Amino acid sequence: MKTVDFYFDYSSTNSYFAAFLLPDLCRKRGATVNWFPVHSAALFRVTGFDVMAMTPRKARYLWRDHQRYGEFTRLPFRKPSRFPIKTATALRATLMIPSLVGENPDDYTTAKICDFAQAVMRAYWERDADIADAATISRLAGELGIDREALLAAAGSDDARARLAAATERAIARGVFGVPTFVVGDEMFWGKDRLDFVERLLIGR
Amino acid sequence: MKTVDFYFDYSSTNSYFAAFLLPDLCRKRGATVNWFPVHSAALFRVTGFDVMAMTPRKARYLWRDHQRYGEFTRLPFRKPSRFPIKTATALRATLMIPSLVGENPDDYTTAKICDFAQAVMRAYWERDADIADAATISRLAGELGIDREALLAAAGSDDARARLAAATERAIARGVFGVPTFVVGDEMFWGKDRLDFVERLLIGR
Repeated sequence: MKTVDFYFDYSSTNSYFAAFLLPDLCRKRGATVNWFPVHSAALFRVTGFDVMAMTPRKARYLWRDHQRYGEFTRLPFRKPSRFPIKTATALRATLMIPSLVGENPDDYTTAKICDFAQAVMRAYWERDADIADAATISRLAGELGIDREALLAAAGSDDARARLAAATERAIARGVFGVPTFVVGDEMFWGKDRLDFVERLLIGR
Repeated sequence: MKTVDFYFDYSSTNSYFAAFLLPDLCRKRGATVNWFPVHSAALFRVTGFDVMAMTPRKARYLWRDHQRYGEFTRLPFRKPSRFPIKTATALRATLMIPSLVGENPDDYTTAKICDFAQAVMRAYWERDADIADAATISRLAGELGIDREALLAAAGSDDARARLAAATERAIARGVFGVPTFVVGDEMFWGKDRLDFVERLLIGR
């Protein structure tokens, strides 16, 4: 079974779209998603490039573009009132999900990671929730049957910090410079607009 | 008949792809392309944003991405040895094509502009020609039956300079911040990756 390494951050609009489109595509094509939360602020510090570099002119366009993309995909995207937003807690929590649900702590392909990541994405990009607040993250985990207190403790642990640093370093080592990025074998694709290329690669065309 | 205003520069790889994909799409959908050469260096000076802002890491990725896109579209894209390249002469020459072929000087939808722009794109992005050299531009015009000497004179004229400044100012007034950009009615789309949105708009979906 082919695996798609999915590097993402909750603060990235295009990661939001990819977090729903990629699992659908992989389900259809019999592939597995490997969820790699990346701290994009840390990524940009190392790679020296801020893909969010923005002017009011470009920002205006991008929000309109995202709105159109939401209409096209029927994902109920809504511009959040807090933007950008701090995501470290949410990213660290994501990486602790496997161990919290009693699975292999290093297996980032588990269904529960997908559920949790999509729940965080929906909270921020559809319902304007404050995902920088640990209470929000803990509530979302609770809704998935995960122990809220255990999640909060895990998200603040040294293990979580080490895992987030490792995921971000792995991204840097692979040549990632922005999110979302998809890696299939030796091929890297940047941006939700390359999901068609990911799909063609998965079906060997 | 619907019209797509196409803002482009010869120095832009994505404009190269769009210069072939957009006319095909418009032919299929009964729409007209309005060719607006834009001096992207001048555009970036005004809009304060350089979409080409680049790190070696991102540049490496983009060339691979372009190569894959060339394979997908079957356009024989080849990384040019001179990059970036000065395009002012080629852009000014393009804007003078209508008057050189005896048509309305202000009609940028004429078939000859399409032929000429595609010839310049092919020369640079497929055959590694030096399109900063006026002799190259004049030769390409000659191959289309346009008087080479007249073209050279026209490309250096005040009229050509005024037309390029006007096209670039029109782009700025419309909110353009990069190329390729497509404008249909009130909707603006940036990047060849939005041609599917342009197509859906043209067919009213």
